[in-house]
Amino acid sequence: MTHLAGLLAISQGDPCGIGPEIIARAFAQGATGPAVVLGDVGVMRRAVAHCGLLLPVARLDTPEDALAAPPGCIPVWQPPGLPVGLADLPMGAISALAGQGAACCIDAGASLALAGRVAALVTAPIHKEALSAAGVHHPGHTEMLQAAAGGAPVRMMLANEQLKVVLVTIHMSLRRAIDALDIDGVLQTLRISHQAARAWGLAAPRIGVAGLNPHAGEGGLFGDEEIRIISPAIVAARAEGIDARGPFAPDTVFMRARHAPGHLGEFDLVVAMTHDHGLIPVKYLGVEEGVNVTLGLPFVRTSPDHGTAFDIAGQGVADASSLRAALAMARRLAGLA
Amino acid sequence: MTHLAGLLAISQGDPCGIGPEIIARAFAQGATGPAVVLGDVGVMRRAVAHCGLLLPVARLDTPEDALAAPPGCIPVWQPPGLPVGLADLPMGAISALAGQGAACCIDAGASLALAGRVAALVTAPIHKEALSAAGVHHPGHTEMLQAAAGGAPVRMMLANEQLKVVLVTIHMSLRRAIDALDIDGVLQTLRISHQAARAWGLAAPRIGVAGLNPHAGEGGLFGDEEIRIISPAIVAARAEGIDARGPFAPDTVFMRARHAPGHLGEFDLVVAMTHDHGLIPVKYLGVEEGVNVTLGLPFVRTSPDHGTAFDIAGQGVADASSLRAALAMARRLAGLA
Repeated sequence: MTHLAGLLAISQGDPCGIGPEIIARAFAQGATGPAVVLGDVGVMRRAVAHCGLLLPVARLDTPEDALAAPPGCIPVWQPPGLPVGLADLPMGAISALAGQGAACCIDAGASLALAGRVAALVTAPIHKEALSAAGVHHPGHTEMLQAAAGGAPVRMMLANEQLKVVLVTIHMSLRRAIDALDIDGVLQTLRISHQAARAWGLAAPRIGVAGLNPHAGEGGLFGDEEIRIISPAIVAARAEGIDARGPFAPDTVFMRARHAPGHLGEFDLVVAMTHDHGLIPVKYLGVEEGVNVTLGLPFVRTSPDHGTAFDIAGQGVADASSLRAALAMARRLAGLA
Repeated sequence: MTHLAGLLAISQGDPCGIGPEIIARAFAQGATGPAVVLGDVGVMRRAVAHCGLLLPVARLDTPEDALAAPPGCIPVWQPPGLPVGLADLPMGAISALAGQGAACCIDAGASLALAGRVAALVTAPIHKEALSAAGVHHPGHTEMLQAAAGGAPVRMMLANEQLKVVLVTIHMSLRRAIDALDIDGVLQTLRISHQAARAWGLAAPRIGVAGLNPHAGEGGLFGDEEIRIISPAIVAARAEGIDARGPFAPDTVFMRARHAPGHLGEFDLVVAMTHDHGLIPVKYLGVEEGVNVTLGLPFVRTSPDHGTAFDIAGQGVADASSLRAALAMARRLAGLA
């Protein structure tokens, strides 16, 4: 059985956070399509109870059995090596055991995706401190998946129905981000974005490139990074056949790229130099719609754009919107919808 | 007669740009409310012809005569010192005479507003090179009006129906903007924003303050400007009775402040550290809705958020949406609507 059947894998995330609850809600809402949960059966049963749902949880022998699971149940595959006792951990607390369980499910998801046994991997939120307590030396999902895939360069994309933004720099101070910009980093981002968009099925993806400075530097008057770094990277990318355009003024390029009823965006995605230039427009219309996508991996990986929310975990109140959006985006990027 | 009658002044802008045309359109659309055009009668008649409109242009003896002007006409007051020959200038070209005419109308508008003879000043676009060719040593509207008002510190606000953003830094490279940030600059911005919002009629304006760095610095991990500069400025402002809150992560504070049907914003305005953090969200839903407002002046001044558009001037195709928004915003901020 191959991923042509359109099976998604959903890793359970930290068992003490809201991950299992939002997964249960998404199944209850019929919003998952064919999908297998990589996690612990007991944890999922507890989450179903927390949400006040009446939904059976089925333990599978193989991930592919999810395709034959009866409708209206949550099909769970427990990866080999999953620690026992996860369903007994207190909700909303950092725990090494929880981190170990979360990591096991992520590794299993990467293996299934790399083997082509699932069409895409959707990851529920993990807690970085729990992961660290479990002895995992990667700070988060992205680095774990990157290592599993052999270390290829990756980039973070944030996307919703209207806009897809790929970031050149992410978690560092704005001053360091400016220092970190170079032609290679921008060019690499353009290549990764182009290849990913081709893999989604766009024959000739149109990439709008945001400048760094006001008015994209106004011809050098307001900064020269556009002249020294961004423009040469665009020229090099175009020489490779990548349809990269710009650099454009940051304050209008996202508006120009926005796809909405009656508003055909000029670009298929935008490459932004800094974390907030890129994330401000994606999140502006509502953070619950944002989906995090890792580009550069040899498979599609999406995740909701929020954390474990330990403060409300176990209360059955967590909102599954962002996970639903992540599932829909995974399906679309994998060519299933 | 005082501004209680609700008269707005509209300065004509560069006579060779789209300013006169969008003014004519706004009158034809009945979108101005009681307003007097500060400009040249011949230029306005030419603009009416360019737009293919049938609208009489009335020359007034005093600005206040606009209140008694018959409906369906464009009331124009020619300020003393307005140069002759403006209507004979070629469209779409930089000209010292045009710059001189534009400056004369702006000065007249400032005088009327300072004297309380108009409730607000709305400025049509000027061309900086024409202004410079006319020997005006101020680079633009803001500086001219600031000088006319005695040099008080001012800040630029960009606003639409959903969001109001005031900028701490504007036209400089991102690197220079980071270097330019200091406690005084942020505190001054908070004071100006607070006083302006009070003048619009908000008893206790709620000001959300955006950080500079990703996640507002993540406790110092991603930059320390929040700790060294922004937080102390907020503390000082709060000690003065200003309801400033933050610093918040730049990528979500604008979404939190957004006012929309079914979405009550948490803040009345947002103070942003950089040009593009602030302008990206204001422009995201459509640049034609953005209005530029100068805060810190002793009167309300708004302008459309576009330039003279020399490339289409005289063709009658210019869109008056942003001018209409600027007129509506001026009326609202002046307490007239």
